[in-house]
Amino acid sequence: MRQKKYLLPESEIPTAWFNIQAIMPNKPLPILNPATREALKAQDLYPIFCEECANQELDTVNEWIPIPEPVREQYAAYRCTPLVRAYELEEALGTPAHIYFKNESVSPAGSHKLNSALAQAYYAKQQGITNITTETGAGQWGGALSYAAKKFGIDCAVYMVKTSYNQKPYRRSIMQTFGAAITPSPSMSTRAGKDILTVNPNDGGSLGTAISEAIELAVSTPNCKYTLGSVLNHVCLHQSVIGLEAEKQMEMTGEYPDIVIACFGGGSNFSGIAYPFMRHNIQDGKKTRFIAAEPSSCPKLTRGKFEYDFGDEAGLTPLLPMYTIGHTFKPASIHAGGLRYHGAGVIMSQLMKDGFMEAQDFAQTETFKAGVLFAQTEGIIPAPESCHAIACTIKEALKCKETGEQKTILFNLSGHGFVDMGAYDHYLSGEMQNYVVSDEELAGYIASADALNK
Amino acid sequence: MRQKKYLLPESEIPTAWFNIQAIMPNKPLPILNPATREALKAQDLYPIFCEECANQELDTVNEWIPIPEPVREQYAAYRCTPLVRAYELEEALGTPAHIYFKNESVSPAGSHKLNSALAQAYYAKQQGITNITTETGAGQWGGALSYAAKKFGIDCAVYMVKTSYNQKPYRRSIMQTFGAAITPSPSMSTRAGKDILTVNPNDGGSLGTAISEAIELAVSTPNCKYTLGSVLNHVCLHQSVIGLEAEKQMEMTGEYPDIVIACFGGGSNFSGIAYPFMRHNIQDGKKTRFIAAEPSSCPKLTRGKFEYDFGDEAGLTPLLPMYTIGHTFKPASIHAGGLRYHGAGVIMSQLMKDGFMEAQDFAQTETFKAGVLFAQTEGIIPAPESCHAIACTIKEALKCKETGEQKTILFNLSGHGFVDMGAYDHYLSGEMQNYVVSDEELAGYIASADALNK
Repeated sequence: MRQKKYLLPESEIPTAWFNIQAIMPNKPLPILNPATREALKAQDLYPIFCEECANQELDTVNEWIPIPEPVREQYAAYRCTPLVRAYELEEALGTPAHIYFKNESVSPAGSHKLNSALAQAYYAKQQGITNITTETGAGQWGGALSYAAKKFGIDCAVYMVKTSYNQKPYRRSIMQTFGAAITPSPSMSTRAGKDILTVNPNDGGSLGTAISEAIELAVSTPNCKYTLGSVLNHVCLHQSVIGLEAEKQMEMTGEYPDIVIACFGGGSNFSGIAYPFMRHNIQDGKKTRFIAAEPSSCPKLTRGKFEYDFGDEAGLTPLLPMYTIGHTFKPASIHAGGLRYHGAGVIMSQLMKDGFMEAQDFAQTETFKAGVLFAQTEGIIPAPESCHAIACTIKEALKCKETGEQKTILFNLSGHGFVDMGAYDHYLSGEMQNYVVSDEELAGYIASADALNK
Repeated sequence: MRQKKYLLPESEIPTAWFNIQAIMPNKPLPILNPATREALKAQDLYPIFCEECANQELDTVNEWIPIPEPVREQYAAYRCTPLVRAYELEEALGTPAHIYFKNESVSPAGSHKLNSALAQAYYAKQQGITNITTETGAGQWGGALSYAAKKFGIDCAVYMVKTSYNQKPYRRSIMQTFGAAITPSPSMSTRAGKDILTVNPNDGGSLGTAISEAIELAVSTPNCKYTLGSVLNHVCLHQSVIGLEAEKQMEMTGEYPDIVIACFGGGSNFSGIAYPFMRHNIQDGKKTRFIAAEPSSCPKLTRGKFEYDFGDEAGLTPLLPMYTIGHTFKPASIHAGGLRYHGAGVIMSQLMKDGFMEAQDFAQTETFKAGVLFAQTEGIIPAPESCHAIACTIKEALKCKETGEQKTILFNLSGHGFVDMGAYDHYLSGEMQNYVVSDEELAGYIASADALNK
């Protein structure tokens, strides 16, 4: 019988995270204080983030950062995750390509997000923090943090993008089942939220706005820290367990990926699967292609601009050097809530600029078509975000069919879609829309970032 | 680091199912033709079921029945499933008991049901059948069969209990994503459905009614067979992969279960986890206790009567010797739709009668309380059905706390609850009800079975 899944025992859970910053040919540009334009030091981030996370954020020296044993112990609830050969997807496509996926959907929260949530909750606990707060788009990060906070005995408050709050009531319930307090964003509980609702009472929210609200709560509440589920360097660091395991598992298959694919919102699951392989491009002359799959309605990598911008809509964060379509960008209400973000993480942006990765964008209906095919062949209903990675994988696999090349493709299945069935209903009804951003519209939004770079 | 999960490679997927009928001290009583009162032979079942399934149903001779390789190959998408030590549940309870669970929630359809769905779809395909039909309560079986039918290239029509259809729209979407046609039951598409709706247009349906409708469709449609997800012997046979794997995994832990627990609707997941261990009670003098956890609102094992009864509400099936509360029983609208069934499978009923197993019943709110604790400790949100097994496990573990006994408890986590978050919302709102069946009411329903035994 052909082997379908490649499993690793718990003893193979990585003991250190891989920090790509240490080996980047061009280090990321500094993060700036918007008022002084001075480069921020880790200490400058302490008011918002846990100290250890702030230190990791700016660590460009240590290639390997040990994973605390209590975090590894929590990882063991679901890690090592399986690497799976998608034989039946290959057969349905008639492609000579070999398709593998890393199945991060098996985590308690249903996605890769828990890899960082557990680390951040642990560091908060270690520092004596009693409350953590965050934003969530699709609800994947919020669910993960809610669970992680419960595991380490701290309270958790989540601002959930209102569009997702309404589209995905089950995600809210999951967070509540794990014991967290959930508020739809924009809300009247913060200055940032009030300002937006005053102008537009029906504003559906965005990750940028929810971030503003969560940060405001964190800095105005004693013994409370903010956490972020993507974009930032320490988050991507924690996600490296995905690729480190996948590297060992690919060795078990006897193959090495020609192409590595992941969906892209802020970059956390992309960096998780990509960096451990990318280090062999940087250090060992490998020629793997790394493709970020983003929604065509939020095209920061394919149509954005590399410059300094705020990480949130209200302009509360430091200035980040990133591919951006402007912090004022209003993403369309696509179901892949986790990809509705205007910027790419600092590391990814530098790597993109330096040609280590590429990006492709996909229309919403194309991603769900891919997701349904994947469900019917491989049996896992993917999260709407993950559908982007699958659409990209199918596109590349069909190119192999044309050329006859037997490439090895690895993609990250970042999460399952059991809690997103309303989105599948929408797709199956035939009424799902695609959203196109015009050049003029995009230029207007990007101008909000341009203004910060003069 | 302590070991959390016990994994087996795909090569350890069982190559044969275990047929407990072959070793039962008292064989099950025969299944009867209601008109003639004659014992049915396998051929009598051919008009409804695939021939191979009908043969397996009445096989009291062969202890081991080979699993076809194409079925094993499909099993490999998720099997072997993990055996997990519930350390954090143990700690939360402060019990000296060691708690293990077999995690069947990792299957593509989210529950153990796929173990039999794949076998039944395969045998249908082998026999040249082009359409299969079934009923589903919670939607677990319907989701599994929809997926299995797609894998083997046959069409699938599902009658879904109307209560569940309305309570669990995501389950319907899952089946549709896998490509099946779904009809809420009772429906106007069958004689059985029409008869019920004529009397009560708002009838919420039951498994019994949905079975009647599916059988009617099967016998009136060319090249179409009926499939059932529980109760029947061949279904329980297919589920034995659960316990066979768990047996090897328990060996890896160095322990042997003192108690084996599963929730109980028709008996499929119970028999799956229990029989492979029960054979050592029958053959090797082991003293393991086997506990079926049923809802107090549908108490066929704790308050039912062992006698012949119909398997469906309309009385279309043969007469089955079973613990029953009467085929006219109207189960309350509890969220554990898969446990809303009036009878226990023939094998389980005989084993219950002969003292090889016991039963306990649980109120709905107690099961959800257990489910939330399990979610917060072990990270998996359990299906409402599985919450019954967890409630029973907690009860037994707390007994160990009282007595100081360090018992080893194994339970079957039959499915996850990601698609049942509406039920958790209901519980967390504090408005969830418990349903108690009075003795008088119960006696009235049981009379419908008594009438068949005169």
